[in-house]
Amino acid sequence: MRAERKRDWKSKLHEVIYGTHTPAGKLFDIALLVVILYSVIIVMLESIPRIDRQYHEFLNISEWIVTVLFTIEYILRIICIKTPKKYIFSFFGVIDFLSTIPKYLSVIIGGSQYMTAFRALRLLRVFRILKLVRFIGESNNLLRALRASRTKIFVFVFFVLILSVLLGTIMYLVEGPEHGFNSIPHSVYWTIVTLTTVGYGDISPQTGLGQFIATIIMIVGYGVIAVPTGIVSAEYVSEHSRKKGNKKKERTCPECGTIIVNKDAHYCRVCGFRLKDE
Amino acid sequence: MRAERKRDWKSKLHEVIYGTHTPAGKLFDIALLVVILYSVIIVMLESIPRIDRQYHEFLNISEWIVTVLFTIEYILRIICIKTPKKYIFSFFGVIDFLSTIPKYLSVIIGGSQYMTAFRALRLLRVFRILKLVRFIGESNNLLRALRASRTKIFVFVFFVLILSVLLGTIMYLVEGPEHGFNSIPHSVYWTIVTLTTVGYGDISPQTGLGQFIATIIMIVGYGVIAVPTGIVSAEYVSEHSRKKGNKKKERTCPECGTIIVNKDAHYCRVCGFRLKDE
Amino acid sequence: MRAERKRDWKSKLHEVIYGTHTPAGKLFDIALLVVILYSVIIVMLESIPRIDRQYHEFLNISEWIVTVLFTIEYILRIICIKTPKKYIFSFFGVIDFLSTIPKYLSVIIGGSQYMTAFRALRLLRVFRILKLVRFIGESNNLLRALRASRTKIFVFVFFVLILSVLLGTIMYLVEGPEHGFNSIPHSVYWTIVTLTTVGYGDISPQTGLGQFIATIIMIVGYGVIAVPTGIVSAEYVSEHSRKKGNKKKERTCPECGTIIVNKDAHYCRVCGFRLKDE
Amino acid sequence: MRAERKRDWKSKLHEVIYGTHTPAGKLFDIALLVVILYSVIIVMLESIPRIDRQYHEFLNISEWIVTVLFTIEYILRIICIKTPKKYIFSFFGVIDFLSTIPKYLSVIIGGSQYMTAFRALRLLRVFRILKLVRFIGESNNLLRALRASRTKIFVFVFFVLILSVLLGTIMYLVEGPEHGFNSIPHSVYWTIVTLTTVGYGDISPQTGLGQFIATIIMIVGYGVIAVPTGIVSAEYVSEHSRKKGNKKKERTCPECGTIIVNKDAHYCRVCGFRLKDE
Repeated sequence: MRAERKRDWKSKLHEVIYGTHTPAGKLFDIALLVVILYSVIIVMLESIPRIDRQYHEFLNISEWIVTVLFTIEYILRIICIKTPKKYIFSFFGVIDFLSTIPKYLSVIIGGSQYMTAFRALRLLRVFRILKLVRFIGESNNLLRALRASRTKIFVFVFFVLILSVLLGTIMYLVEGPEHGFNSIPHSVYWTIVTLTTVGYGDISPQTGLGQFIATIIMIVGYGVIAVPTGIVSAEYVSEHSRKKGNKKKERTCPECGTIIVNKDAHYCRVCGFRLKDE
Repeated sequence: MRAERKRDWKSKLHEVIYGTHTPAGKLFDIALLVVILYSVIIVMLESIPRIDRQYHEFLNISEWIVTVLFTIEYILRIICIKTPKKYIFSFFGVIDFLSTIPKYLSVIIGGSQYMTAFRALRLLRVFRILKLVRFIGESNNLLRALRASRTKIFVFVFFVLILSVLLGTIMYLVEGPEHGFNSIPHSVYWTIVTLTTVGYGDISPQTGLGQFIATIIMIVGYGVIAVPTGIVSAEYVSEHSRKKGNKKKERTCPECGTIIVNKDAHYCRVCGFRLKDE
Repeated sequence: MRAERKRDWKSKLHEVIYGTHTPAGKLFDIALLVVILYSVIIVMLESIPRIDRQYHEFLNISEWIVTVLFTIEYILRIICIKTPKKYIFSFFGVIDFLSTIPKYLSVIIGGSQYMTAFRALRLLRVFRILKLVRFIGESNNLLRALRASRTKIFVFVFFVLILSVLLGTIMYLVEGPEHGFNSIPHSVYWTIVTLTTVGYGDISPQTGLGQFIATIIMIVGYGVIAVPTGIVSAEYVSEHSRKKGNKKKERTCPECGTIIVNKDAHYCRVCGFRLKDE
Repeated sequence: MRAERKRDWKSKLHEVIYGTHTPAGKLFDIALLVVILYSVIIVMLESIPRIDRQYHEFLNISEWIVTVLFTIEYILRIICIKTPKKYIFSFFGVIDFLSTIPKYLSVIIGGSQYMTAFRALRLLRVFRILKLVRFIGESNNLLRALRASRTKIFVFVFFVLILSVLLGTIMYLVEGPEHGFNSIPHSVYWTIVTLTTVGYGDISPQTGLGQFIATIIMIVGYGVIAVPTGIVSAEYVSEHSRKKGNKKKERTCPECGTIIVNKDAHYCRVCGFRLKDE
């Protein structure tokens, strides 16, 4: 009987942590959302030298509180699930672990505080923001449209890369290292910067021929930008109409077989037969 | 009887100021449009030091004339409306008040002319341009398409922000403060500048790895730009066709007033009344 | 009889110059196209100091040849049309005149060769490129889609301008003249540069708050870029399907009234009735 | 009989090299893909001075191995095809030849290693990446949508060029050589950089009027970017729905072989044969 009560306690906890339909579950989600955003803001503020110097103590304590909260969350998630292994090695399980551990490691390898590797480890905490993906939800038909056009977008990116390598090589040949096009990879980088219409301007063509080719690249990029938009739009429009179509339930008149479109129709519009209410 | 005449006068004024269908109402709207544009141009010219020095007197007088006109408009709007409170605390009521008051305040706190707070107050007058929103009108199906896709766009912006924080942190790690990526917020700023294809070039990646990641960000941004376009296009297309559909001649049932949608209906679908053929 | 022969000669010339269906008319069009492009390239090359110095004589002679050709064309167009006045004051008539006259004026006011006003006059010859618009043709449904969405795009541009003035003023307040935001018009210019994702980088926000607001402007611009695309796409899709729809001629079965979709159908697909051939 | 065996051997080889359906054919394709990518990466790394100095020997040997592999592939392709001439002068035949020959030429004209013409020749090897186009496939309906809207996009590019020449000339006149607008071609280059929203910032307008015109160009570019997107979207949507339509089960008339499009057809529309119900 004790085991049963324990079970009961576990399943309730499961409902709160993994569920979203009960008031307690919603409250837990909102609290988690706030803590994640708070922890991300702390990591970002820590990286600003001026703020880190002034509020170091406050940020450190905040970070510890957040870490403890995430530790509790992580342990509770493991306790109340039936198959802990599945959770631990799932995408969110790994993210939850990686976003909690860096602060504890900072105590152990405290002396080597200024190593780059360690800095990377500390910044891992910013990956907590990935936990927010949970709130966007799988049921989103934005993601579905993107997933449906996955292979097409892959082909497109592949095509853009081939084009960039070709055009980048030509620009390297035309402009050369003396105008900032130091190497082919650097030229390809410039080509993608231009093709995607970002245009930093850290490198820009200086010769007349180079500017002429750049102009062609830009106009090509202009046309090429239309392709992914076209793909996603088409996919999204069809997703949109499919969903709308699914919402309708169709009735047919038992007398003459006409499809009854209007939900509130009481009589068949063709033969005047009295329809049954739904 | 006097009260009645007053009433009459008020309702006529109301028609002129709030209405747009009478010739006088249209004239009032056009006059208001001109005054608003004129006042915004004055504020903008005042902010150019060279012009302000040369034409200070002219700009000051113009500003006083405009302020007096707006004061009169504000008072008339309060007088001729039935529930002044509702107007005063409405969006346009607040805008009308805030765009009129700064000039009067400039007389009272004249000495502290060079305070930043006061400068902000003076520039508030540029918000008069928001009055122009009245002319765009609520009936615009551009705004309706945007409103319909509100939640989707919110999810999208949320997704872009998560992506930007992640990629910004990685770039901060890769490039570091020595190449201009001073802090994570600054890196996130750079990521959004790149992702939206703005690309100022005030900061740009210097290391090979940084440029490689930047390239990926750009191509992702290229694909991501398709998403809001897809959303709005889909919403707009459906809005478009819905509106066209509404243009079709409508029949109503003479018995119960129901709108008859189907052209080939012989009976009212609500009350079963035999309809006349078109 | 002589007058008749003259008539005949005129109408033939009219067919060659204004028509495009006869072989001679096509040849004339291609020749004109080549001359226009050639003349535009000359104007462009003249503006490059190095080339103008080296090939001045050649460019000058080329320009005279082109001018004489355009003069002949202009005179022929006037001769062979029935209502010369209508042509002279039409869009293309004015363009034809303005693109021919500058070279003659250069002889008359030869001394004042370095005046800016005169330089502008000479560059007017580049407007000859507008003559090419004739070849794009009125029947293009690209232009029709743009024309159909004219008012919507106007409302959109109006909306973007209001937004730009507001955001530009806020940025002027936040960044101020010390960071390059010299005046409100200059700030508005920067806002439009950012909103349209051009992003020169000649001015860029320096303060944290300024960069934060810039980020919001960029994301707004990202969403806003979707609107004109949505408008034109929707308009274009409906134009597209309307055109396709017009191509079909519908037949109905005289026996049972079914609409015959297939052009090559010989029998009604519902009742098997033998259809008449079209 | 020997000739027959040879035939057999050739047709098998043909299946492996040109075919993609057999396991050996797939393996060949994947191996080729890896070699192409590897060879392109080598060319790119060679162009980075630091890496070329350090790993010169390794890169040279790799390049020789890749060249030998491509030579074998080229010879095999010629051997196993029925009409070698057709292959040699086809697009891919030329690409295959041009991407193999430069390394052999480097031995012959070894002394003049630093000539620009030779550098161009060596970089020709990067065109090997075009061989990847084979893998994208002709059956792609991305390319089909682009091809269908070919003429429209050509008209659009033509229109953009006319606009750019006009606006570039005006900007040359307004800003002049003293603000970086050295010549009309240079101004046109700047206009296209702005119109396509690339915005390097190497040249940017300095005068108030220039910035005002630049603002107009940007907003025009903003609207114009919608046009190719609209074209490709519309084409893609129609391609999309056409393809979906084709997926429907088709019936053929057992009498005359006509494809029966309509699901509810009871009679063949060509010969009037009574069809069986599905």
